[in-house]
Amino acid sequence: MSEHLHDCRVLRRCWPEYADAHSTHVVNVNGVDIGGPLPVVIAGPCAVESMEQTLRIAIACKDAGAQLLRGGAFKPRTHPASFQGLGLEGLKILAEARARTGMGVVTEVMDPRLVEQVSEYADMLQIGSRSMQNFPLLKEVGRSGRPVLLKRGWSATLDEWVYAAEYIAQEGNLDIVLCERGIRTGVNESYARNVLDLNVIEPLRSVCPLPVIVDPSHATGTSSRVATMSNAALACGAHGLLIEVVDSEETRATLRCDGEQGVTPDQLARIVAPLGGVA
Amino acid sequence: MSEHLHDCRVLRRCWPEYADAHSTHVVNVNGVDIGGPLPVVIAGPCAVESMEQTLRIAIACKDAGAQLLRGGAFKPRTHPASFQGLGLEGLKILAEARARTGMGVVTEVMDPRLVEQVSEYADMLQIGSRSMQNFPLLKEVGRSGRPVLLKRGWSATLDEWVYAAEYIAQEGNLDIVLCERGIRTGVNESYARNVLDLNVIEPLRSVCPLPVIVDPSHATGTSSRVATMSNAALACGAHGLLIEVVDSEETRATLRCDGEQGVTPDQLARIVAPLGGVA
Amino acid sequence: MSEHLHDCRVLRRCWPEYADAHSTHVVNVNGVDIGGPLPVVIAGPCAVESMEQTLRIAIACKDAGAQLLRGGAFKPRTHPASFQGLGLEGLKILAEARARTGMGVVTEVMDPRLVEQVSEYADMLQIGSRSMQNFPLLKEVGRSGRPVLLKRGWSATLDEWVYAAEYIAQEGNLDIVLCERGIRTGVNESYARNVLDLNVIEPLRSVCPLPVIVDPSHATGTSSRVATMSNAALACGAHGLLIEVVDSEETRATLRCDGEQGVTPDQLARIVAPLGGVA
Amino acid sequence: MSEHLHDCRVLRRCWPEYADAHSTHVVNVNGVDIGGPLPVVIAGPCAVESMEQTLRIAIACKDAGAQLLRGGAFKPRTHPASFQGLGLEGLKILAEARARTGMGVVTEVMDPRLVEQVSEYADMLQIGSRSMQNFPLLKEVGRSGRPVLLKRGWSATLDEWVYAAEYIAQEGNLDIVLCERGIRTGVNESYARNVLDLNVIEPLRSVCPLPVIVDPSHATGTSSRVATMSNAALACGAHGLLIEVVDSEETRATLRCDGEQGVTPDQLARIVAPLGGVA
Repeated sequence: MSEHLHDCRVLRRCWPEYADAHSTHVVNVNGVDIGGPLPVVIAGPCAVESMEQTLRIAIACKDAGAQLLRGGAFKPRTHPASFQGLGLEGLKILAEARARTGMGVVTEVMDPRLVEQVSEYADMLQIGSRSMQNFPLLKEVGRSGRPVLLKRGWSATLDEWVYAAEYIAQEGNLDIVLCERGIRTGVNESYARNVLDLNVIEPLRSVCPLPVIVDPSHATGTSSRVATMSNAALACGAHGLLIEVVDSEETRATLRCDGEQGVTPDQLARIVAPLGGVA
Repeated sequence: MSEHLHDCRVLRRCWPEYADAHSTHVVNVNGVDIGGPLPVVIAGPCAVESMEQTLRIAIACKDAGAQLLRGGAFKPRTHPASFQGLGLEGLKILAEARARTGMGVVTEVMDPRLVEQVSEYADMLQIGSRSMQNFPLLKEVGRSGRPVLLKRGWSATLDEWVYAAEYIAQEGNLDIVLCERGIRTGVNESYARNVLDLNVIEPLRSVCPLPVIVDPSHATGTSSRVATMSNAALACGAHGLLIEVVDSEETRATLRCDGEQGVTPDQLARIVAPLGGVA
Repeated sequence: MSEHLHDCRVLRRCWPEYADAHSTHVVNVNGVDIGGPLPVVIAGPCAVESMEQTLRIAIACKDAGAQLLRGGAFKPRTHPASFQGLGLEGLKILAEARARTGMGVVTEVMDPRLVEQVSEYADMLQIGSRSMQNFPLLKEVGRSGRPVLLKRGWSATLDEWVYAAEYIAQEGNLDIVLCERGIRTGVNESYARNVLDLNVIEPLRSVCPLPVIVDPSHATGTSSRVATMSNAALACGAHGLLIEVVDSEETRATLRCDGEQGVTPDQLARIVAPLGGVA
Repeated sequence: MSEHLHDCRVLRRCWPEYADAHSTHVVNVNGVDIGGPLPVVIAGPCAVESMEQTLRIAIACKDAGAQLLRGGAFKPRTHPASFQGLGLEGLKILAEARARTGMGVVTEVMDPRLVEQVSEYADMLQIGSRSMQNFPLLKEVGRSGRPVLLKRGWSATLDEWVYAAEYIAQEGNLDIVLCERGIRTGVNESYARNVLDLNVIEPLRSVCPLPVIVDPSHATGTSSRVATMSNAALACGAHGLLIEVVDSEETRATLRCDGEQGVTPDQLARIVAPLGGVA
């Protein structure tokens, strides 16, 4: 299986030491090791909607034990009338949250023309599912000098995903973390937005030296399912979690993006508590 | 979601106590409770191939801590030239293994005309994935008086699966255990036979009072992946596991059915050990 | 591709003449040739609901140019509370429609115990999608002496489908017609019940000598789409069509099964008219 | 179904005349009407590999009756080691082919930074499947003043596809042609690269006033299947075809991109001949 992965000259050829040792290339983001012995939790709002909301949630995430802050300033939205994010203003809010909490910031970039700008504010650049095969963007983040979080497309094979990482690696950037976020199937419509493919983690780790984390928020689409799928992801060998957080049950309905899937800080704390300390 | 499940008059209407209590209908198979506080492990060969092979594996499964014995006497095979099982002779071998080990026997029935015969030898009747919507068969096992293990079809929705259980329940047989065994998708071809859908367990438990177990052997198709997916299944709230076992690495290639996915008794013991004792 | 089909000893090995000649094994049903130069239309109600309804529709189908009558006496229904068909009474109604119109009758059988009874009334036995891998049933219809209409399962590969036909053929019955009826995907939910897989017809015909027809009614789930997909099916080389018919737009809502997808006799006539006369 | 499409304020709200008249917004590309009474054929090499190859094929396509020339200068390739296209040199070759044959040129753009440059050479900008939800790119081509060919993502729903068109339309560019090119499923692996979803054409046309064409080359992945699926596409109401062409059977294996799916000029001529003249 995956015999063509021998073509990944950077990921496979240059790193025989990882394959031999079954070890992982540790990616350091603002002092936090992803791929090391302890799982890492990246948490925060789906979208940066205001300074107040972002700071409140960032502090709550830190208190709950999360190590890195996620939050979208540029939001890829299926429908053009949906909230598209605050853009540069959102980046500045994230920078303020970073200054207040000390947490490194992970945020999405969709446009190769904005990689440089986003890199000024972010500690890690997220490539979203829809962009997994946006090759000009992959090359640009490969040249950015920033660690990259590469989400799997919702219908991508393992090979396509690793090849996307190879595009980044060939630009000289090996600091890539892969993120499983659920696949589209014909059977899950009544119970989950997507099917979180936990089956892929172990095979992926066996062919690729990069860390793998899991986003249980988008796959389930339901906050009450996040804790369970987080535990399952870690049982499968995930190196960390990417979790969306809301202020409280009350504010859920007021959000402009995906409010129903964010966990509360209390729920986040219960997910993080058993993970063995700050990475 | 799943709003039509209110039509399941037996599973939903007659059992408000389960829904209210978020509890599970415990199914007792030869003294072993499925759906109780401890997870149950059902283990054994894919197919009954001989008396010696079956007894050896049955004893090894019992020693490893499994509580029930699985083994196919009637095998549904995609290709007609593949080994179809030993039939009645296989049932007699299973009965002998039961006598020697005391383990209750779980075996598949595909033909409504054979339900009575298989029920004489089996403690639990398995309905395979291909038979999930074989309605005459479902009705017949519903009238058999035997507990039923109902595997999900590899492209079945949650609703279709629960409706299949309702077919059995309407014949007066409420002793049904549901078994997730992997779904067919367009992305898993290079790394797994099917994608084990662990996302379905929690939603399924929220609409249906029946126990849910997971078969990691068929989904992964690879023995080395079974332990990890077993742990993940239990993290998702599965009430048990259905695991295929081979004698040893050496005998794997000699088997007439699915040798590559069976774990060895040692591997089985390592899966069972942390589960907290015999159910 | 499909290299394992060499294992189909009856379908591949015994019929080199078909493979060499790229010709098709013609299946004669009550004097109508399926697989010959002219496409065949099998039409009728989804379910036999009464004598009057069935006779009216049968006569209308004949007048519209259909050559064979379809109608379900035993209906496989996802939900046990749905109408399951009239059973034996339905078979007798179909026999009466046959006597009145001279049209051969195609009807589904789901239970191997009923193959003999259904064969007394039907000119062709239909195996439904859910039964495509019901191997005891396939063997029984293989021994029935009746031509068989084998629908593809909604998630079946080409190989699985041909192997299912091989199960029938190995019992000595080569009079098998394959029927494509749509596959389940993750993308069609808003516009079609299933995606009619017209891509499979030509590859299927290149590896298997059996005729292939298409059921546009179940795939589209919408009567207004049936004519278009019928034309497309014939453009792809289908040997015929299986079409559901309702009395009129007015009676659609009163039906107990799938009323929204049946075409009216007028619509049927417009589909049949260009096909070049009675086969 | 698709009730949210009422949110497409440009495509739905501003164009009630199309919805009322069940008519199509005709898109003119270099004098060729797409969406008018006659189907349009866009043909050419997968990739522009050299001046000689491109001119030879362009002339052969024109002689065969194709109205527009396709050819890739920037190729999105799953693997970074695959041939990525000749870039600007490829654009210049296409311009030369345009000058020699008079055919308008359709070519893909992947990078928003290159839209202006590609627009200087191309008569129509192609958005590939992987870019269907590349929103910065969609906005950029929406501002380019060039007609756009928007391919469906291989796992995109109808709604997602129309929303992607709406992104372009909201920038003031209504000259958009939609292109179905096959979906990824779990069943087609042995007989087709993807399943051409002809079922979507009629529903799509019922909710959206834009022309729809079909690419049978990528879906089938096999040149011998292209003619059949072309006919089927037109039977379903497609306004045109996008077809890959090779010089000859002999040169197929020498190509750097997708040689096995290109039809020869003779095969192309046989597809085009029955279509009723130049659009």
